[in-house]
Amino acid sequence: MSSDRPAPSGASGAELAATDRATLIHPTLPAHRTDRTVLVSGSGSRVRDAHGREYLDASAVLGVSQVGHGRQELAQAAAEQMTRLDYFHTWGPLSNDRAVELAARLAGLSPEPLRRVYFTSGGAEGNEIALRMARLYHHRRGEPQRTWILSRRMAYHGIGYGSGGVSGFPVYHDGFGPSLPDVHFLTPPHPYRRELFSGAEVTDFCLAELRETIERTGPERIAAMIGEPVMGGGGAVIPPADYWPRVAELLRSYGILLISDEVVTAYGRLGHWFAAEHFGAVPDIMVTAKGLTSGYVPHGAVLTTDEVAAEVTGDHGFPVGYTYTGHPTACAVALANLDIIEREKLMANATVVGDHLGWRLAELTDLPVVGEVRQLGLMLAVELVSDKDSRRPLTGGTLAVADALREQAGILLRTNPNALVINPPLVFSRADADELVDGLRSVLSRTGPDGQVH
Amino acid sequence: MSSDRPAPSGASGAELAATDRATLIHPTLPAHRTDRTVLVSGSGSRVRDAHGREYLDASAVLGVSQVGHGRQELAQAAAEQMTRLDYFHTWGPLSNDRAVELAARLAGLSPEPLRRVYFTSGGAEGNEIALRMARLYHHRRGEPQRTWILSRRMAYHGIGYGSGGVSGFPVYHDGFGPSLPDVHFLTPPHPYRRELFSGAEVTDFCLAELRETIERTGPERIAAMIGEPVMGGGGAVIPPADYWPRVAELLRSYGILLISDEVVTAYGRLGHWFAAEHFGAVPDIMVTAKGLTSGYVPHGAVLTTDEVAAEVTGDHGFPVGYTYTGHPTACAVALANLDIIEREKLMANATVVGDHLGWRLAELTDLPVVGEVRQLGLMLAVELVSDKDSRRPLTGGTLAVADALREQAGILLRTNPNALVINPPLVFSRADADELVDGLRSVLSRTGPDGQVH
Repeated sequence: MSSDRPAPSGASGAELAATDRATLIHPTLPAHRTDRTVLVSGSGSRVRDAHGREYLDASAVLGVSQVGHGRQELAQAAAEQMTRLDYFHTWGPLSNDRAVELAARLAGLSPEPLRRVYFTSGGAEGNEIALRMARLYHHRRGEPQRTWILSRRMAYHGIGYGSGGVSGFPVYHDGFGPSLPDVHFLTPPHPYRRELFSGAEVTDFCLAELRETIERTGPERIAAMIGEPVMGGGGAVIPPADYWPRVAELLRSYGILLISDEVVTAYGRLGHWFAAEHFGAVPDIMVTAKGLTSGYVPHGAVLTTDEVAAEVTGDHGFPVGYTYTGHPTACAVALANLDIIEREKLMANATVVGDHLGWRLAELTDLPVVGEVRQLGLMLAVELVSDKDSRRPLTGGTLAVADALREQAGILLRTNPNALVINPPLVFSRADADELVDGLRSVLSRTGPDGQVH
Repeated sequence: MSSDRPAPSGASGAELAATDRATLIHPTLPAHRTDRTVLVSGSGSRVRDAHGREYLDASAVLGVSQVGHGRQELAQAAAEQMTRLDYFHTWGPLSNDRAVELAARLAGLSPEPLRRVYFTSGGAEGNEIALRMARLYHHRRGEPQRTWILSRRMAYHGIGYGSGGVSGFPVYHDGFGPSLPDVHFLTPPHPYRRELFSGAEVTDFCLAELRETIERTGPERIAAMIGEPVMGGGGAVIPPADYWPRVAELLRSYGILLISDEVVTAYGRLGHWFAAEHFGAVPDIMVTAKGLTSGYVPHGAVLTTDEVAAEVTGDHGFPVGYTYTGHPTACAVALANLDIIEREKLMANATVVGDHLGWRLAELTDLPVVGEVRQLGLMLAVELVSDKDSRRPLTGGTLAVADALREQAGILLRTNPNALVINPPLVFSRADADELVDGLRSVLSRTGPDGQVH
């Protein structure tokens, strides 16, 4: 490969990087950084940059690309729909055949009694809608004082002022406040972080805290609790098996709605259509996005019950809608994407390859900086520590590891301050998994407690 | 046409409507309404439903479809990009050629000094980001107490808890609260609503109120003012020519940022790329979306200055990003869409056909319920009143008029409680305009002061 192959746009990699530096604002990129990795093509679990270099996409971009990159079927579905009916909304009595088809398909896939569908363009939009639905539900039932939302530290629900307001990382609040009022953060069910639980069993601790919080706040003032079944941005934080059933039961006893943020977990990542099936706890409102279209067109769906839908629509209609709600092309791509997930048995692959990858990654715990490996289906994390006994994070964070993985091992993945976050495409093969583990070993074996790679 | 033509999905119109009623949650649709208009195809300014009936799209869906429906060029651009690099993000040092190309193109089109670009998937996301940028800008400059946002009654900025929090219609707050703190609403510069201004000249009144609000709140506590150059959801509310230059100057004198919500106005609707050119006032942050892709793929771009970008990126990077920021397929569709706007001279068409339509619509003011017609480019509104002297709105609202226009005249458009909101595709022809006026006359001549159509 040449070192500076022209991209399809005709610009060289160096030219693209220079233009990027002059114009584009990147999330989380410090102003002083001048390096850019300009991607130009992708296929399956691989993407390629403007210099012709290939990378293994170990995060399905951001837990999105269920069916992998460059799928002809989705391009064709999009193009066909765009020439037929590119876009219309579904406000008032207006509708379109693709939105209806997809709504019916999702109502059929989702656990009972979630058979009402509200379309969005992504997960953050979905969480904003879920929060609004929960508050309006109580308001219209004559309990307008039920405004409080319970969430959890280390939760990630998006970066709108609602979705970010219930996200439990200080970085989404500091300098942006004041945030959404009436939000309370609970302890995440994160067994590896044993210091959080004062020696108690994780679920027992979390349930006692939840009950105490509800009683202290007053159950008649709480609208809903929101949570990811497995925390994604937190780093594949898998709760004990009894956590969600017990949380759901307790909330129900107080008339508090449960909002499940399945933006990462839905559409096959855990080996089921939805995490609700795995955990045996069905929420009142379920927020999905990402894997619904594998990201080819931004899209999302909020699923809820007849009961919630009846209250929030009611005599006056649900008063809020997005420009792109029920977008026909997004719906057509989603339908074709779900077809691929079924036809290629990608949920079974998520279980088989996920288990293999989890087992292989566990080998890395012989390294001094690998504290724990977590895995459920194709949702995984490698917790990095400066010291295994204290379980303290790398003192200098995880960013240098991510850079080394990209530059030295050709691996793209996400990190949070404590962990490597691994959400491969559901088309990931055992060979991809083995290559990923080899790359991780090559870098992590040279990583010091300060997070620097030598 | 048959009365129940099978849609491309194979389902009949009646079947689609039944499935819709059982599954889909529509914004603003009361639960008791059972009628559905299920669209299945579109071309140019026309769309067609499952019964084979054709409609004139007089609102470009929601002020989105600049180039009209069913454009082969955009379908091809999307399909080509999906097979090359469907989707990746632009977090950290990652980038892609399409995002860079589009950022450079927008930096070239936008008024100086707006040459930094942050990509979103829509207008509400853009406004959330703009609010965050404004607050973080002051925070990082050592003025963390600058948190207040000034907005205006009748403003529409989206329905996230931030974008909806600064939207000035009670319906986006009632039952959903508490809303975003530290927001203050000013009087909209709406000349027809003379009761708002106590007899003063509109701009003088608004500027005095703005200055008084700033002084009372304390300028050192105010981060930004947000406003649509022409209020869209408010019904093409066109401010006096000196409003924006004087607002911008006053804000600047206090160190308060100006956020311009150009989600509807950008990309040709007013006959310019941006409303900033028309009004001669350049904001610090400009939010765009809708017309950027004509809605074929949800997308948006927030444009800002080097100065704001430098502060919010800084040593630690701008900490918030969306899953789809810099989406390559959305960017490729945007590039092809901008090509069409240029090649087909759609900005000139917006001026010519807009002026023609405005002139023709003005004929309708002979009808008792038509209070005023407003027009700038292809952004128009017909203000409906129960009484011309008092200028009171129709006592029963505008929904029955919208239903009659759709059912009796085959016209799709948006309404707010006071007005018909008309934002045609920029490909609208004079013949389309004449047809629209004829349809409006046929319905409005039978509309009573209660809003019922006889």
